[in-house]
Amino acid sequence: MSNNLSIEISSGDITRTVKARQGETVVEAVRRSSVLEDMRRTHDVSLPAPCAGRGRCGRCRIILDNPGSAEVPPLHEAEEELLSEKDVQNGVRLACQLHVVDGMKLRLEKTVAARIETRVEGFEGDMDPILVKRVAVPTAGSLEDQRSMSARVEDELGLIRGSLPHSLIRLLPSIPDGKTPVTVVLDDDTPVALDVGEDTSDALWAAAVDIGTTTVAMYLVNLADEEVTGSKAELNAQSSFGADVISRLEHARKGETESLELQKIITNQLARMLGSLTGEFGVDASDIHLLAVAGNTAMIHLMNGWDARGLGEAPFLPGSLESPAFNSEEIGITGFPRLRIWPLPSLSAYVGADITGGLIASGMKYREGTDLLLDIGTNGEMAIGGVEGLLCCSTAAGPAFEGAHLSSGSGSVAGAVDHVDWSDAKLSYSTIDGTAPIGFCGSGVVDLVAFLVKSGLMDETGRIADGPTETDSADYSGLEFSSGEYGTELRWPAPGPGFTQKDLREVQLAKAAIRAGIDTLLGHAGIEAKEIGTLWLAGGFGNYIRPESAAAIGLIPRELAGKTRSLGNAAARGALLCLLSRKYREDSRSIAREAVTIELSGRPEFQNAYIEAMMFPTDGES
Amino acid sequence: MSNNLSIEISSGDITRTVKARQGETVVEAVRRSSVLEDMRRTHDVSLPAPCAGRGRCGRCRIILDNPGSAEVPPLHEAEEELLSEKDVQNGVRLACQLHVVDGMKLRLEKTVAARIETRVEGFEGDMDPILVKRVAVPTAGSLEDQRSMSARVEDELGLIRGSLPHSLIRLLPSIPDGKTPVTVVLDDDTPVALDVGEDTSDALWAAAVDIGTTTVAMYLVNLADEEVTGSKAELNAQSSFGADVISRLEHARKGETESLELQKIITNQLARMLGSLTGEFGVDASDIHLLAVAGNTAMIHLMNGWDARGLGEAPFLPGSLESPAFNSEEIGITGFPRLRIWPLPSLSAYVGADITGGLIASGMKYREGTDLLLDIGTNGEMAIGGVEGLLCCSTAAGPAFEGAHLSSGSGSVAGAVDHVDWSDAKLSYSTIDGTAPIGFCGSGVVDLVAFLVKSGLMDETGRIADGPTETDSADYSGLEFSSGEYGTELRWPAPGPGFTQKDLREVQLAKAAIRAGIDTLLGHAGIEAKEIGTLWLAGGFGNYIRPESAAAIGLIPRELAGKTRSLGNAAARGALLCLLSRKYREDSRSIAREAVTIELSGRPEFQNAYIEAMMFPTDGES
Repeated sequence: MSNNLSIEISSGDITRTVKARQGETVVEAVRRSSVLEDMRRTHDVSLPAPCAGRGRCGRCRIILDNPGSAEVPPLHEAEEELLSEKDVQNGVRLACQLHVVDGMKLRLEKTVAARIETRVEGFEGDMDPILVKRVAVPTAGSLEDQRSMSARVEDELGLIRGSLPHSLIRLLPSIPDGKTPVTVVLDDDTPVALDVGEDTSDALWAAAVDIGTTTVAMYLVNLADEEVTGSKAELNAQSSFGADVISRLEHARKGETESLELQKIITNQLARMLGSLTGEFGVDASDIHLLAVAGNTAMIHLMNGWDARGLGEAPFLPGSLESPAFNSEEIGITGFPRLRIWPLPSLSAYVGADITGGLIASGMKYREGTDLLLDIGTNGEMAIGGVEGLLCCSTAAGPAFEGAHLSSGSGSVAGAVDHVDWSDAKLSYSTIDGTAPIGFCGSGVVDLVAFLVKSGLMDETGRIADGPTETDSADYSGLEFSSGEYGTELRWPAPGPGFTQKDLREVQLAKAAIRAGIDTLLGHAGIEAKEIGTLWLAGGFGNYIRPESAAAIGLIPRELAGKTRSLGNAAARGALLCLLSRKYREDSRSIAREAVTIELSGRPEFQNAYIEAMMFPTDGES
Repeated sequence: MSNNLSIEISSGDITRTVKARQGETVVEAVRRSSVLEDMRRTHDVSLPAPCAGRGRCGRCRIILDNPGSAEVPPLHEAEEELLSEKDVQNGVRLACQLHVVDGMKLRLEKTVAARIETRVEGFEGDMDPILVKRVAVPTAGSLEDQRSMSARVEDELGLIRGSLPHSLIRLLPSIPDGKTPVTVVLDDDTPVALDVGEDTSDALWAAAVDIGTTTVAMYLVNLADEEVTGSKAELNAQSSFGADVISRLEHARKGETESLELQKIITNQLARMLGSLTGEFGVDASDIHLLAVAGNTAMIHLMNGWDARGLGEAPFLPGSLESPAFNSEEIGITGFPRLRIWPLPSLSAYVGADITGGLIASGMKYREGTDLLLDIGTNGEMAIGGVEGLLCCSTAAGPAFEGAHLSSGSGSVAGAVDHVDWSDAKLSYSTIDGTAPIGFCGSGVVDLVAFLVKSGLMDETGRIADGPTETDSADYSGLEFSSGEYGTELRWPAPGPGFTQKDLREVQLAKAAIRAGIDTLLGHAGIEAKEIGTLWLAGGFGNYIRPESAAAIGLIPRELAGKTRSLGNAAARGALLCLLSRKYREDSRSIAREAVTIELSGRPEFQNAYIEAMMFPTDGES
């Protein structure tokens, strides 16, 4: 998102004609959009709106140039609640609550750049990219050799006669001169593009993207060199329709216009990110041939414009889990004339292509013994198994571990408390970039709750104490206790972020859901936690969380705390591996077809595990 | 072509801005189009112009409403030569010689409907259409069965998981209700289209077309019933660019604009004919799924927009001879949203997909022994062989046997002399529809020359006698002999059509080329004419020619006169067979790859045979 973008709203932007039928009469009315909607639709700017524009989260802040003007609507109730006096003096408003007015001028607050995980570890094994370029130099014709130009190319490259499609034949000259090279792009031996006139085999590009509900991370890959050239991450531009998958699906099910709107937002974002990456590295837009897409099942449905209604209601049915690669223009991505889209296969409605990517990236499928893969994003998705087979499930953990839905929750931005330490009876913290604390990101939340467990300031049911006992001599570094609506409220690092009993309950529900998923998978696999070889942690959360803290709050079994390995962006890493290796792509398909998804909803063993996992460990157990 | 179409030309039609660079100055000039060009470009009307607008054939006749108006340009030299006094009085002009003038009003002469061969004989063998519709009724989902909608369809139809393409997944709802049918169109087990909501398996349509240089014949096929429902034939709308292949290729090689112009003309014609056929039989435009295209190699290149330059010059190289089926919109055929185009494979630059169709239609490939296939159109294309293999060649016969390039040549229209009889020393004739004679069509020309051979009125070198000998008592029914520029001129049936020594030479060259092709093929196959099992005659000419006359003039070996079988429109029949049978389609591909084309140009044995075949048989030999 641009910083300090200045936008002027004209009357052309603000009138939306709404037609309604009343008996025999069609009534036309003008509905005024909210600034949130208008910026999205008219100016292609997506403000964050985790609450989907309901006036609850206070994230869609904009600054008016002329806040006191007579035309500007007065503060809405939600704004009075969520904005400070200073905010109001500075002209800050909430875009979701403010209706557009002709001549309104506004700018965005300086956006804090999010720290988004784009690390992809080095690859192992032999590379065998799924796209290759092969060069033929068709020999000159003669009365003895009247083969067609396309047959000359096919013969020289060992392709089946008649396999070049019409769209490529059209590009061929009919008279070979014996010296002009024809460079053909092959995808799994199928010709998909060609260049006539020079050997272009050193320019063969692809990209991998992980479309997360919260963030989109894209990697540019030079397939000719088998190297990841660059990466780029942004917040998912669909965020203004809500932070979670369900809000997006709810918007999409309103109708075709809304589905298309969500599709357009993500495909525009993909085009923009790809444009930015290719621009940065000087790659010609026509030299990028494939975009491998990982992401959860809903994100892939929304991108493809597949019917996603089944995902949002029991029994949770996808429109589709896989498709062959298709032309990017079929989903409205233009400007990359030879780009095809290949969505990695998904496993089920809630175990998506991101997990397929993670399974590929972890290499679990190839190992003896049993590993566990855990991807904690907005949902907690996980898989257990090895070479003998894979079991997967998904739990509706909610976004607490991404810092959302918490009173002082934060994304992974500068100033977020990412770690809380409790050692030798002394409390301390650190923030990202070491700047003043502005809130808790996921790893900080886990540490904070682990501290509450270890210090005894919270009981096993999750009730936070009113304060330290009289005899407590620990150094709490200014931790303040007060009484709030739902119980104790903590304020710390004072006077900054706080953490309430309600926040604690969000974390408690989330960790219970994930832990119950793990325990259910272990039960189905018939093994105990100690028998797990490695716990693979996927995603940004997995990269920063302290396994010890996760075990302390019961998020993971204690036996696994010493066996974790972080995969970084495992989904994207898996997609990259599929680009760089035909074997991995083929395996991604077999994984998606063969892995068994256990549907947790309504399953008694899951419900039992969920209730048990609700309790916090007392120190020593897990 | 519409009859009595009235056209008014406005100044908008007539100014073509032509830019030319003179030193540093760009000069703009207005070039006035000919009426021929203008009608084609502005009014989408293609007049016949076998001479490609050079003012030689006199076929592009139009009638001016105001021929004497001061603005109308005077008669061009070519018009003075080719139009009769009565024509001029009636306002007839040649469209190629007349420049357009603002306000000019004209109409077309009543067009005589051409008799075009659309007969397709009954099919033999088991039908196994290449497109089939299969109906799945996806079962309702449950927590125990969370398969995606696309997987349900794939599973029920026995398709590979993941084979439904994105474009079809988009059409699927995600929530199966257990009773809504999904009808899938499969092409060789590949899903290419689908309908949701009702069982549409009784509506599955395709079409076959033979694009001849002269005529286009299209057949509508109900694949659900395996029946040919209707047919339609028109003159090829590209005719205004010349009667023969070479004129078209010459126009195309001028540049991309000209290539596109030719492509647009034929694709528009195909769309129009298909629209007319589907309209006539009440077929929904979205229910027609495949157009199988036979035609000579040049016609297929022009339709597809493939580079055709190699076809027009030695060593005669095609851009391509085959391609998988592709979407009709790729060649600009719109209005049939699910139509794909499949060009039958061609054998070489001058042995086209029409011969592939003929080979399929004749069944030669499946027979023991050796057959011969002869397709006399603008070129003479032929093949020899059987189950052991096939040899093919093409000879530049020219269009004499289609009635073109002859002083009184005619297409197969009412009034054309189609047969000439010479028995018991009496000459007689018949015309198509029994109307007054207007010229000779191909079969009439062959009969006429056979009469000259048998009567002794022509010697073996092809010189026509000055007249009957004094002692000749035969009844020549008023045949008139006179002396013309190049030798004797015959006028008969008096006072109508004539036949000149120059006409005779055209026929002589054409029959020599074809016969030399036959003899060369026989030589390469190492067999004699008497060993041929069947001589298959393809095309309209093959349907009407008398084998006895063809043998009498030496066009075919005498031994084959009693062994001919007519195939009707063999090319279209072959295309229809490919639609109705997967085996035939597969065989059409193997034929195209395995048949050997013998390039005749520059080959000594062909040159020898050509010179020998130039002589006419004396009665009794051949």
